[in-house]
Amino acid sequence: MTHPAASQSDVLSEARAFFDEWVAHPEVRPPSSETVQARLREIALELDATGTYTHRFEELEFGARLAWKNSNRCIGRHLWRSLEVRDQRSLHQLPERESATSNALQSHINDAFRGGKIKSIVSVFAPRTPGKSDPVRMANHQLIRYAGFQTGTGTTGDPHSVEQTAHFMQAGWKPKTQDPFTPLPWQFYWNERPSPPQDVFTERPELLNEVTLVHPENEAFNELGLKWYALPLLADMALKIGGVVYPFAPFNGYYMGTEIGARNLADETRYNFLPDVAKCWGWDTSSNRSLWRDRSLVELNRAVLFSFDQAGITIGDHHNLGTQFEAFCAHEQSQNREIKGDWSWLNPPISASQTPQFHRDYTNDVCPHTNFFYQAPIWKEAKPSSGCPFHL
Amino acid sequence: MTHPAASQSDVLSEARAFFDEWVAHPEVRPPSSETVQARLREIALELDATGTYTHRFEELEFGARLAWKNSNRCIGRHLWRSLEVRDQRSLHQLPERESATSNALQSHINDAFRGGKIKSIVSVFAPRTPGKSDPVRMANHQLIRYAGFQTGTGTTGDPHSVEQTAHFMQAGWKPKTQDPFTPLPWQFYWNERPSPPQDVFTERPELLNEVTLVHPENEAFNELGLKWYALPLLADMALKIGGVVYPFAPFNGYYMGTEIGARNLADETRYNFLPDVAKCWGWDTSSNRSLWRDRSLVELNRAVLFSFDQAGITIGDHHNLGTQFEAFCAHEQSQNREIKGDWSWLNPPISASQTPQFHRDYTNDVCPHTNFFYQAPIWKEAKPSSGCPFHL
Repeated sequence: MTHPAASQSDVLSEARAFFDEWVAHPEVRPPSSETVQARLREIALELDATGTYTHRFEELEFGARLAWKNSNRCIGRHLWRSLEVRDQRSLHQLPERESATSNALQSHINDAFRGGKIKSIVSVFAPRTPGKSDPVRMANHQLIRYAGFQTGTGTTGDPHSVEQTAHFMQAGWKPKTQDPFTPLPWQFYWNERPSPPQDVFTERPELLNEVTLVHPENEAFNELGLKWYALPLLADMALKIGGVVYPFAPFNGYYMGTEIGARNLADETRYNFLPDVAKCWGWDTSSNRSLWRDRSLVELNRAVLFSFDQAGITIGDHHNLGTQFEAFCAHEQSQNREIKGDWSWLNPPISASQTPQFHRDYTNDVCPHTNFFYQAPIWKEAKPSSGCPFHL
Repeated sequence: MTHPAASQSDVLSEARAFFDEWVAHPEVRPPSSETVQARLREIALELDATGTYTHRFEELEFGARLAWKNSNRCIGRHLWRSLEVRDQRSLHQLPERESATSNALQSHINDAFRGGKIKSIVSVFAPRTPGKSDPVRMANHQLIRYAGFQTGTGTTGDPHSVEQTAHFMQAGWKPKTQDPFTPLPWQFYWNERPSPPQDVFTERPELLNEVTLVHPENEAFNELGLKWYALPLLADMALKIGGVVYPFAPFNGYYMGTEIGARNLADETRYNFLPDVAKCWGWDTSSNRSLWRDRSLVELNRAVLFSFDQAGITIGDHHNLGTQFEAFCAHEQSQNREIKGDWSWLNPPISASQTPQFHRDYTNDVCPHTNFFYQAPIWKEAKPSSGCPFHL
């Protein structure tokens, strides 16, 4: 599959918009307007000659950070300036591209985990060239993610992963175990052609960094055998900077507790553990009106925060992240920069009205030139665009 | 203040849109297309002659129900067809208009409360006539609402009512007590000129119908002295049907528990009772990370539902209303009618991800011709329109 080229004038105007936004951030050492003008003339020439243009490292660095800042749905983007940007744009050209890329990602995991003090990193691989297939991508949604095995009676593992797990097994993956928390293998696509899956966490289990969930008071809870991985590292979103698309730019932040405790382990269409949690307290689950679901949610979330804290691993809670994000919004307003946001994502799935986000309105315009975007998975048939502004 | 007239062609096209929507609801006995055409010709003539037109009762009835159904923010509107519509359009013409209107509203309260089995009713008073002042409105936000008295150290009562309470006292209200749950008086505006406030609940305390909050297990909670009124009855929104505006059309539904337990009594900018609730369990409130706020919220909401149930008074919980609303959405889809909705209002302020609403997208287009709208309070200086589509 080749990707339709944006017109050169579109790319140039998105490059210009990118530099304009940089200039609107005087605290991040923007180039002077003379430098910007000269650079835009240079970009125009390169666009004429090649159909795309090449970011300088400082553009890549600021651009990736700005893309995070522009991610309307992210509650943690007040940390945007601390993002470490790794330039991996030429790894695919090496003869040993697969091992080199795999090693770079393993280092990304290790350095981002940083012994528990999680650091946000993005690894930026080869950009898209109009009319050509993407040099490198992965099938994975996140670099660390649990499989979902369809069984006769239901799912073992994460229902969110069922389709992808079947894909990996068709591609030759032979999982050593099929338990509820079996990590998925990695699979690269070179020029959009798949390599065999590699079971990286069987080879290097120390990269998994899981947290066993224990409850601060309830011992029965500890018998449930719940756990989750420490590092959310998204691998299937496209990074776009000033009109140039990077289809493979895996990045990590750290978790907000509710993502694990109120969604991954709690949603009825995910691990659906609330009934088991309720049993640890002996709560009557015969009617939702007793709010056993609500009580169980809170206790599960307490266990998540408590367990990560006990393990010394960075995790945010919806109260402190909400307060930090609100301070960030106030700062941006003081700089006459409007914060765009997606209210439905910025609000946590529990106790939303106790966070500042609930009481604010956000304009949800999606910045088109520099942002992270959803894209069609490389391992699925291409589908027509949904028209959703969060998708490329 | 006179109100700018919509152009006659605008009103006529909104009347046409209203009848079109009626025809799209075959289950609600719509008029035939011949009848609609004849009626629209009649409406056009009346518009020419008077600048407005007069609804027949069956139009008023279906129109008020449709306005409820079109209320994007309401989770209870699956009950729209059960709304009782009271035609009070000529009460303001009586010599004893104030006592007649007050009595009609007291009957509305009594009949809607119905001994605890709450029934949804709307009382529709005089419509707006272009170029004239509104015949009747009230200062009140809800017909039953607690005052908020500003004191040297803070607020006694509901902070949401502080400004309105000051207004009533300036207008001559002398509250018998100033406690946290003092009901506000009523105040009518005739042709937009105020009458003196009347202390209706001092005269008829049996209309208040309050529920003292007790907790199913925690006795210390019962000492907090929390209560809330049973009947939410909004009095300051405008009803619009087929282009005709009814600036005073008070309506009630029944409560969803979270409105009381997760907002009115819990918001830091409202009654802010969570720290007191937490003390009943002895929870450590030194850091939000212990999720004491989340636990207290759930327990307060359990008390709300338990107490209303014990008192035999209708109240919904976010789980059952969510399920009912989801079934309503599915029914509407089966009839090829799109449900519009405001995700941020349809989702409850606690445990949102455990309701079907969380996992759905809604288009939030506001139906302009038949709906309930916010409007500038009659007791405040008129402000320029905010441009928000939920406002007239």
